[in-house]
Amino acid sequence: MDTALAFPAGEDQLCCAPSERPAIDAAHATSAAQVLKAFADPNRIRLLSIVKAGDGGEACVCDLTEPLDLGQPTVSHHLKILVDAGLLKREKRGTWAYYSVVPGALERAAALITNL
Amino acid sequence: MDTALAFPAGEDQLCCAPSERPAIDAAHATSAAQVLKAFADPNRIRLLSIVKAGDGGEACVCDLTEPLDLGQPTVSHHLKILVDAGLLKREKRGTWAYYSVVPGALERAAALITNL
Repeated sequence: MDTALAFPAGEDQLCCAPSERPAIDAAHATSAAQVLKAFADPNRIRLLSIVKAGDGGEACVCDLTEPLDLGQPTVSHHLKILVDAGLLKREKRGTWAYYSVVPGALERAAALITNL
Repeated sequence: MDTALAFPAGEDQLCCAPSERPAIDAAHATSAAQVLKAFADPNRIRLLSIVKAGDGGEACVCDLTEPLDLGQPTVSHHLKILVDAGLLKREKRGTWAYYSVVPGALERAAALITNL
């Protein structure tokens, strides 16, 4: 089949023959792992879930410490990892910071797994 | 609405109102993080991808060491984590072990993220 020649390696192929899809390269694997590492901790999973379930899809940082039974510096540390991974958005309003899930971010992270 | 009373907390609700879906509890967050931790390393991401792209959806352990440029004990360590997480299946045939992706495992792992 000359379709293999028509698609250079690395090009996204919507193909049903898994053995013709090239394996992910080192650079893409590193960036995928950087995002997926954000999900490797139960407290970060709970933070994402609490924010997503919050009124209007957001949660005040003042409401995130108590349900996790963690200190404020630890919660801030985990929130920073989630923001740096592009999963949460932080917005300061008055005294408090409010967090929301970046639209589409969870779906894009999940696609890193299903598109392996 | 009395639907809130009809569904105990934790019951899976196919609902389009995110603020009515309860946040994940600690036990579920811990088990989700255990699976997703397997994706937190670029070498494991590459191993999964190479196995998935292999002929017949499997790869001999003898073909997994060279592309990653890692020693055999390190590759075995990562493969064990992937097997323990329920993502890869190991089958011994003759001299070599062959690895394949557990059917549906990547989709289930991705759903842990999209269903948060």
